[in-house]
Amino acid sequence: MENLRLLNKRIVSRINANLREFNFDAGSFAANAIEYDKLSRFYCLYGVTSCHPIDFNFRNASMAGSYFLGKCSVNQSIIYKSDIRGDELKRKGDIMDQENPLPLIEDETIVINNSLLYKTLVHHNSRNPETPEEFTIRNTVSSHYANIHGATMEGCFLGPFSTIDLMDLHSCIIGEFSYIQAGELFHKKIDPGVIHIETDEFCFKFKYKPEILAKYIGVNDSFQPRGLIYNFVTGKEPEYEHLFRLVDVDPVDAPDSSAVNRHAVIKGDTRIGENVLISQGAYLNNALMGDGSNAQENTYIIDSRLMGMDVTAHGGKVINTDVGQKTFVGFNSFLFGKEKARLIIGKGCVVMPHTIIDIKTPLEILDNSIVWGYITCEKDLKTNSIAMDKLNQFAGTLNIGDMIFKGNGKSFIDAFVQRIEHILEANGAYCKDGSELRGHAQNGQQISFNILHPYRSGNNEGIYPSIRIRP
Amino acid sequence: MENLRLLNKRIVSRINANLREFNFDAGSFAANAIEYDKLSRFYCLYGVTSCHPIDFNFRNASMAGSYFLGKCSVNQSIIYKSDIRGDELKRKGDIMDQENPLPLIEDETIVINNSLLYKTLVHHNSRNPETPEEFTIRNTVSSHYANIHGATMEGCFLGPFSTIDLMDLHSCIIGEFSYIQAGELFHKKIDPGVIHIETDEFCFKFKYKPEILAKYIGVNDSFQPRGLIYNFVTGKEPEYEHLFRLVDVDPVDAPDSSAVNRHAVIKGDTRIGENVLISQGAYLNNALMGDGSNAQENTYIIDSRLMGMDVTAHGGKVINTDVGQKTFVGFNSFLFGKEKARLIIGKGCVVMPHTIIDIKTPLEILDNSIVWGYITCEKDLKTNSIAMDKLNQFAGTLNIGDMIFKGNGKSFIDAFVQRIEHILEANGAYCKDGSELRGHAQNGQQISFNILHPYRSGNNEGIYPSIRIRP
Repeated sequence: MENLRLLNKRIVSRINANLREFNFDAGSFAANAIEYDKLSRFYCLYGVTSCHPIDFNFRNASMAGSYFLGKCSVNQSIIYKSDIRGDELKRKGDIMDQENPLPLIEDETIVINNSLLYKTLVHHNSRNPETPEEFTIRNTVSSHYANIHGATMEGCFLGPFSTIDLMDLHSCIIGEFSYIQAGELFHKKIDPGVIHIETDEFCFKFKYKPEILAKYIGVNDSFQPRGLIYNFVTGKEPEYEHLFRLVDVDPVDAPDSSAVNRHAVIKGDTRIGENVLISQGAYLNNALMGDGSNAQENTYIIDSRLMGMDVTAHGGKVINTDVGQKTFVGFNSFLFGKEKARLIIGKGCVVMPHTIIDIKTPLEILDNSIVWGYITCEKDLKTNSIAMDKLNQFAGTLNIGDMIFKGNGKSFIDAFVQRIEHILEANGAYCKDGSELRGHAQNGQQISFNILHPYRSGNNEGIYPSIRIRP
Repeated sequence: MENLRLLNKRIVSRINANLREFNFDAGSFAANAIEYDKLSRFYCLYGVTSCHPIDFNFRNASMAGSYFLGKCSVNQSIIYKSDIRGDELKRKGDIMDQENPLPLIEDETIVINNSLLYKTLVHHNSRNPETPEEFTIRNTVSSHYANIHGATMEGCFLGPFSTIDLMDLHSCIIGEFSYIQAGELFHKKIDPGVIHIETDEFCFKFKYKPEILAKYIGVNDSFQPRGLIYNFVTGKEPEYEHLFRLVDVDPVDAPDSSAVNRHAVIKGDTRIGENVLISQGAYLNNALMGDGSNAQENTYIIDSRLMGMDVTAHGGKVINTDVGQKTFVGFNSFLFGKEKARLIIGKGCVVMPHTIIDIKTPLEILDNSIVWGYITCEKDLKTNSIAMDKLNQFAGTLNIGDMIFKGNGKSFIDAFVQRIEHILEANGAYCKDGSELRGHAQNGQQISFNILHPYRSGNNEGIYPSIRIRP
């Protein structure tokens, strides 16, 4: 196992060099997070379909429990129980930047070098025009349930349950449960619980109060997570184990137009409509998935109903909740209705990323609302929501509760509406007759998984052989 | 699936070109043997250990249900439920030919091109000095339960349950249940049920009567097998299925010095001694495996006892039988004792390859005997065995029953004794303290398996992506 320990040391030294101005040591996170025996025992998966580009290239890496799809290159990295999706990679000849319409000279690849990704989701839809052929994560350590979403990462540390969305990040530290979508950041340290969305046309900011955040997601001295949301997730982990013991599982009852990933937990009285996407790691118990809805990676839909065309973004948790048509539940949101305190969300709403709704009495959110932050009762809604119509007509600076909005409300609304439409289209929610407008739901059906193991003994224990898979 | 059908056609056209003088058409075998839906559904396995050379290279191949270990290159081939072992590959620097002691310039590789191997075992210990760095199977079709053992193959068709052992074969047809070890053969058609071992110093020949062979192994017009032995094997197939559904199975109770392959069936009151090797596909039910014994690939040890240091070569079937110490049971032998008609085989015996013993009353074979052919009772032993001592002193021509021996008896005995010692050493039967004299039993313990899947849809359905695995 010497080589695996050396690999860990090398990764830590690289990230520490990137973050030296902050006197940050990623070593304590790594030392407390990594269980070496699991790295040598667990396998990783590479998805093979006829619909996705196939090119998988591993060198000196440990990838226990991880999932890969599409063109991925992994070098000198430890990727543990992470999910790296390449189903939105651009192809040779695609035009990325309409203002500078030079086509890609080769298919795009996800490149992960000198990094430790721990239970991290990397979904990719990069908008970085600097290197359109390569989506890069380099010298980066990300911790439990972080999301790297179409974001170029260099020399960063991501705290637990943080999300970096559609941007570039260089030599930054991101606090736990923060969500950042802000173009490009250099050498910044972001506090925990910050929600920050910024473009040329608007800026949205919210920050959790530390005492509230600590209840749901906190970290100890070595950045290991604790709190209610973390306990919720770890409590469900044993229910996935049997899925990984079997090479193939019996398919779940679902329409031909829908895809239920074989590494999703489906239980109770769960019903799945047409054009539905249920991704790996999703957990559905007594869930109604209306036509065109999706449950993305690491989502939990429990005792809840999604009426149709609903998006549950990565890590979203929807419990004892009814979600109206075409409502968006953002990354890592925790919608915690109770059996006797049901949460009703109207049609066409946007639940902002990293929203926590934890109620003791029933609560209803009106159609076409935007909600954010921390909501426990009707009263909180006043300081944590706005009607879309109202924001649509707004320009200037707006303070509501702990939220501050600056800029053009219509641009903000348009950006969300466009994004939701893109997600629905990409996931195949609008598929017709099984052929027109196909998306992930249809293309992910005929998937098979290569199960790749590390060396089990010797100096290379826990390291994988070099593996290249091509069409 | 177009590409898979095209691949099949191409393989058939190549072998037919090699065998055109015989007006042979491998197409009827292929058309009746291949089940295309299984080719696209079953996975193949590549073993990863720290003790074996790792280099696996696939291009345009279908390998459903097959098992690979070591340096293997597979191109333009269909390999179905076959077992390709590379654990005896020579290494760079090894000297192969003492008379021409040039070291190998690189590690040896198994190369399989333009071939269809159907439920075939390829074990490798090549003695071909012409291409020491490459062990080649080219333009060859082999059928159910054939063994290719250290034998270079070019343009051949092997019938069901045939064995080609330590030789070179070019443009030959081998009949079902024939065993050939005869240096080099060109453009020959070998009848079914021929046992032929020939060196410069001796020649051993036996041929089954067609009416007897037909009872145990026959073929129909398209070379598909039938008969008692085939039915025996196919009857056991369902018992392996659960082993292939699971990624990892719980280890079988066995001493640290022994290896029990995870794709072996172990049931009943089976006991496993020290330094025992139980290979993939072995089937043990109420079996006593004495210290240093082995049950190689596709062997069946049922209600039987192996007293120690016993070799059960590939495909050997040992039922209601006691096997004395250091006795060799050759390839594909079928030792069919009954509950009330036990077979007792003495110490130090050689059961020649492809021997059938099918008894209705108890039978005992004396220590240090050589037996061959077809034995159903005490009387048959007279025409199908000889004491080793007697053959050891013989030179000339010897006819016993349907067997004819020519040459030097001592050379024949010495060759077998040496080979048995080599097999025991290579398998680790003499291992001490877990480190000295290690062999397959010890080196195969810390194995993990990569599970590789084909495309499940599209033109390439049933074909595997190109895969390269290296250290």
